[in-house]
Amino acid sequence: MEIIHTIDAMHDAIKKERTNNKRIGFVATMGYLHQGHLSLIHICKQHTDFQVMSIFVNKMQFNDPRDYDTYPRNYDRDFALAKEAGVDLIFLPDDSEMYQNRLTYIDIEMMTSFLCGSARPGHFRGVLTVVAKLFNIVQPDVSVFGQKDIQQAVIIQKMVKDLNFPLAIIVAPIIRESDGLAMSSRNVHLKGDDRTNATCMYQSLKKAEELIQHGIIQANTIIPAMTDIIAAGKPKKIDYISIVDYETLQPVDSLKDKSVIAVAAFFGTTRLIDNMIVEKIGDSFTCVY
Amino acid sequence: MEIIHTIDAMHDAIKKERTNNKRIGFVATMGYLHQGHLSLIHICKQHTDFQVMSIFVNKMQFNDPRDYDTYPRNYDRDFALAKEAGVDLIFLPDDSEMYQNRLTYIDIEMMTSFLCGSARPGHFRGVLTVVAKLFNIVQPDVSVFGQKDIQQAVIIQKMVKDLNFPLAIIVAPIIRESDGLAMSSRNVHLKGDDRTNATCMYQSLKKAEELIQHGIIQANTIIPAMTDIIAAGKPKKIDYISIVDYETLQPVDSLKDKSVIAVAAFFGTTRLIDNMIVEKIGDSFTCVY
Repeated sequence: MEIIHTIDAMHDAIKKERTNNKRIGFVATMGYLHQGHLSLIHICKQHTDFQVMSIFVNKMQFNDPRDYDTYPRNYDRDFALAKEAGVDLIFLPDDSEMYQNRLTYIDIEMMTSFLCGSARPGHFRGVLTVVAKLFNIVQPDVSVFGQKDIQQAVIIQKMVKDLNFPLAIIVAPIIRESDGLAMSSRNVHLKGDDRTNATCMYQSLKKAEELIQHGIIQANTIIPAMTDIIAAGKPKKIDYISIVDYETLQPVDSLKDKSVIAVAAFFGTTRLIDNMIVEKIGDSFTCVY
Repeated sequence: MEIIHTIDAMHDAIKKERTNNKRIGFVATMGYLHQGHLSLIHICKQHTDFQVMSIFVNKMQFNDPRDYDTYPRNYDRDFALAKEAGVDLIFLPDDSEMYQNRLTYIDIEMMTSFLCGSARPGHFRGVLTVVAKLFNIVQPDVSVFGQKDIQQAVIIQKMVKDLNFPLAIIVAPIIRESDGLAMSSRNVHLKGDDRTNATCMYQSLKKAEELIQHGIIQANTIIPAMTDIIAAGKPKKIDYISIVDYETLQPVDSLKDKSVIAVAAFFGTTRLIDNMIVEKIGDSFTCVY
């Protein structure tokens, strides 16, 4: 497994693989890998010949500098896990390699008004800008993003379509701990009871699924039921519990063809998110979480 | 010469050329071709094996809908001129092919505050967004832009650098009519005396060069002298006469290592632009216009 730090060296390495007609797979990460990240690589391997993983804690997408400073990092552990998962090349640039007097940015209308966008101003501008940069550096045929960050995944799909990036995006299922908590690099920050209590996020999604299977599809019935369950987990603050359209990310009154039920809450100083995709197939709804 | 209307067909065509190890050259135009456009193709041919030209009057970059409606178009003439210049492939999409419910945009900080940016709000957002789309559709190795639209050329160079597009930008010299007027698709709109009077733009640049060769490098001396010459050409309105840094496009008090002297004025309802790049080489200044 090769580890590359500069953009020029990346262009050379990718050119070599392209000349050999290899299909390039790409997973963007901020490191501190867990099974969730590794599952993205496994999916990527099913579609491509050469696996690139980037590890870059992207300052531009952090609206809270303290969150950036405390974001967990362990590169040696990351390298070992990535190698075991079959990554062929790690791109590990530093800040100055990625951002030298940057003035250009990418943003998106409408789709950042709700969910994490309202609480994190500038976050998705930072995400879209760095992901576009990484796409141009890695030039992948396929890139896999996790459903865990559903707003990010949907917005990146929209950017790829709007700007005609010549690649396919795959959205991969959420990987969970045995008690249902969605895996996240931030889980390491959960202290004391918060770790156990945080499973209320998952339980609220299961409750929503139960209601949906009983024919209840109105947001004003589902959301209060979820709120009760999350409140019982004693979060420091509930950020949002929302039902939005999958394509537009705008709130809906009742479930449509494809919707997202998404939650965000603070446990101590740690902000956690979770979600479920609800798709109408025929007359029934299927929940994927 | 092939003419392609859809993005999918473009991706197939480009993939075929790439498989044959052809280096792709690209010139983006809004059609109504003149010798200026064709000179870009000639330069492109010196560096690449397969020439792609796009013809797309990009509504997103017109801040004035009337300017968009009256922008001159003549595709049959364009095809003949392009073929003669050695273009291999024309990409001619329609509006709906390029913009289907677009929400993503690219913009740039600072560099649009001066020159054409202040008079044309949203113009460069439209330019950057469509050029990024075209880069992703054509995937060129080299793309050539004209010095005539210097702010556009500098901003696109900055976008390519900031977003790491895997391609090289070449800025090509201005092509002029025999009396010095910079070639432009908009010149066809000039009525009566305006066509002759418009050469004052070019003459003002020559005056600036003359002053510079006499050691005068202060903006507050050069700009008034240029203003006198342009005013004598009786424009309906002078939009700006500015001296800016080439890299940042911010106004400078006196000529630096690399500066741009740029002018914009209306003759009748037609807005014309012209410029000169002034580079300090050793102790002397070289003017390219």
